[in-house]
Amino acid sequence: MLHLRIPGPTPIPPRVQQAMNQPMIGHRSKECSALIHNTSKRLRLIFGTKQNPLIIASSGTAALEAAVINTLSPSDEALVVVTGVFGDRFAKIIQKYGFTLHRLDIEWGKACDPDQLRAALTKHPNVKAVFFTYCETSTGVLNPIQKLSEIVHQHSDALVIVDGVSCLGAVPCEMDAWGIDIMVTGSQKALMLPPGLAFVAVSERAWHAIEQNSTPRFYLDLISYRDKLAQDTTPFTAAVSLLYGLSESLKMIEEEGLEQVIQRHEQMKTMTRAAIRALGLKLMTSDEDAAPTVTSIYGGQDKWNPDELRQELANIQVIVAGGQQHLKGKIFRIGHMGYCYPLDICTIISALEYALQKIGVPIELGSGIKAAQEVWKGV
Amino acid sequence: MLHLRIPGPTPIPPRVQQAMNQPMIGHRSKECSALIHNTSKRLRLIFGTKQNPLIIASSGTAALEAAVINTLSPSDEALVVVTGVFGDRFAKIIQKYGFTLHRLDIEWGKACDPDQLRAALTKHPNVKAVFFTYCETSTGVLNPIQKLSEIVHQHSDALVIVDGVSCLGAVPCEMDAWGIDIMVTGSQKALMLPPGLAFVAVSERAWHAIEQNSTPRFYLDLISYRDKLAQDTTPFTAAVSLLYGLSESLKMIEEEGLEQVIQRHEQMKTMTRAAIRALGLKLMTSDEDAAPTVTSIYGGQDKWNPDELRQELANIQVIVAGGQQHLKGKIFRIGHMGYCYPLDICTIISALEYALQKIGVPIELGSGIKAAQEVWKGV
Repeated sequence: MLHLRIPGPTPIPPRVQQAMNQPMIGHRSKECSALIHNTSKRLRLIFGTKQNPLIIASSGTAALEAAVINTLSPSDEALVVVTGVFGDRFAKIIQKYGFTLHRLDIEWGKACDPDQLRAALTKHPNVKAVFFTYCETSTGVLNPIQKLSEIVHQHSDALVIVDGVSCLGAVPCEMDAWGIDIMVTGSQKALMLPPGLAFVAVSERAWHAIEQNSTPRFYLDLISYRDKLAQDTTPFTAAVSLLYGLSESLKMIEEEGLEQVIQRHEQMKTMTRAAIRALGLKLMTSDEDAAPTVTSIYGGQDKWNPDELRQELANIQVIVAGGQQHLKGKIFRIGHMGYCYPLDICTIISALEYALQKIGVPIELGSGIKAAQEVWKGV
Repeated sequence: MLHLRIPGPTPIPPRVQQAMNQPMIGHRSKECSALIHNTSKRLRLIFGTKQNPLIIASSGTAALEAAVINTLSPSDEALVVVTGVFGDRFAKIIQKYGFTLHRLDIEWGKACDPDQLRAALTKHPNVKAVFFTYCETSTGVLNPIQKLSEIVHQHSDALVIVDGVSCLGAVPCEMDAWGIDIMVTGSQKALMLPPGLAFVAVSERAWHAIEQNSTPRFYLDLISYRDKLAQDTTPFTAAVSLLYGLSESLKMIEEEGLEQVIQRHEQMKTMTRAAIRALGLKLMTSDEDAAPTVTSIYGGQDKWNPDELRQELANIQVIVAGGQQHLKGKIFRIGHMGYCYPLDICTIISALEYALQKIGVPIELGSGIKAAQEVWKGV
């Protein structure tokens, strides 16, 4: 049995899988319109907004690009807070279009500190938008988005644009209350679906900016998605089977209760971290900066390579992720989001202990599990 | 039982459905790389090219946009042959980006005539690219792409760019031999998959133009797809479940044999047309211009409305499409592509006869079926 524990895609729950097996329907049918209307409305809870999130048939990156090209014009300056690969992706998109880019580079593995942001905003007072990554998948950092958004609004009129791909649906998000202007997420993370859908929610203030913006775009023109959503449809053919799945995965979240889902992710994070510490391995992020959806762990430097560990895990069908870019061969990452429960953490840690011993890392078998169980019990 | 007979999405074959139920895998895993490598290679047959088709997680329109923005620069002129809604979509994309657009508008329901194209090319000798629709879904016309491509090459150096969304996999396509530079298709038509994947094949000549082109693009930058495909992966998260399905639907086409698949579509077209004629209804397209994947039929003008007919059909679970734009309420369209066989044509015609009689159109029951069966028998 495969245990896919990378930070997305995640395993698909059988009932979501089954929902996707419903007979195909026309994308302009009443049934499909009901599905679009209904799923968009229910996504509002996940985003914490009264706006209806837009649904795009694409991977998450297309939605990041949509957030950039719908708001920025050639003369605009943008500030990107880069805490890893996905912050860097925002920066790459902005550069590709020739908008003026200011980077606030944060050491990978750390969250953006409010003071660093204040300083950057003071240095670049004319930015049109500030781009953040809520959960930085490449390092397992959760940026304090509520606080950071407040700081932006205190210091400027810039739009606050957030990549929430690898955490939305597993972490608190009060987009409206926190003053977030655009929030983006994808299907294959905490929403427990295959990849292929992206979601974008837009504030009134951001709509105003988007309506003034003339950067050319067609497939990623958010206005066309908004206008078609008002008619319960999409401008281009919707990914119908994934929408069926979305409706069911939202139902799972509604049944458990979003607060409980968020609590469960918090618990899985704490269990994982306790186990890693008990095994004497080194966590990449501090408790304060750690994401509830993915945990990054250092390898043994000269002593053992995390990719060797990942291979041993793969041999017993447990798939975890490696490091990206300069973190290749230095860290491994455990995804614990979406269709993942406390007992699954025990499974992952059991496998990890087995594999660590197999590659000759001196650990005490069962010690990680015990630490995880103690957290579990205590909740 | 639902009979979805619109010109896409089409019904999903159970074995394709089942293939999509395989456990989720990481998009950067060896298994996923093998899937990408393997499906791209096998798509070459459908396109008739030695190039490896690129795979994008999007609906077909994004791939049309990719074809435009990867080849055209602000100073470029483009000629679009508009035979219906989807030719018009190419034109809209080109306009949105501010490229210089020349339209060759053909009467809806007719294919582009070689002489009309010659005249347009003479009038606009400097076009960088000519855009065609192979099968115009909105009218059921199949443009004579081989011939039209030859004419472009005789008269200019323009790139030949073709939207093959609603026919590729059901009609002959020899992209390399016919001199087509970019060919685009989507998953939800003759390839028997849910919507959510688009495919783009690019000639050497077009790659040269694309490499010179600096129109900004990120998610739709074909070069990034080409470079990542050379490493058996995609630049952004692949739509894994749809790739599983693609592998299986290609297997179905391989098992039947592409020539036989094409033959079957030709036969279904002929059966449908014979039945429609026998019932005394009026076909929108001539035999010469008719597409093998979709047939457009006029309503009874003042006598009966095709939308009323469609409602009667829907009551017995047979879903056909209406007209788009100025054809709304004037025509209905039967999709017969992908997971559709001669016996399904008999089913559709049976339903059609029932529904026609129900709304009071004087027809002889069984006469359409008989005409279809005679075509079937004769093959």
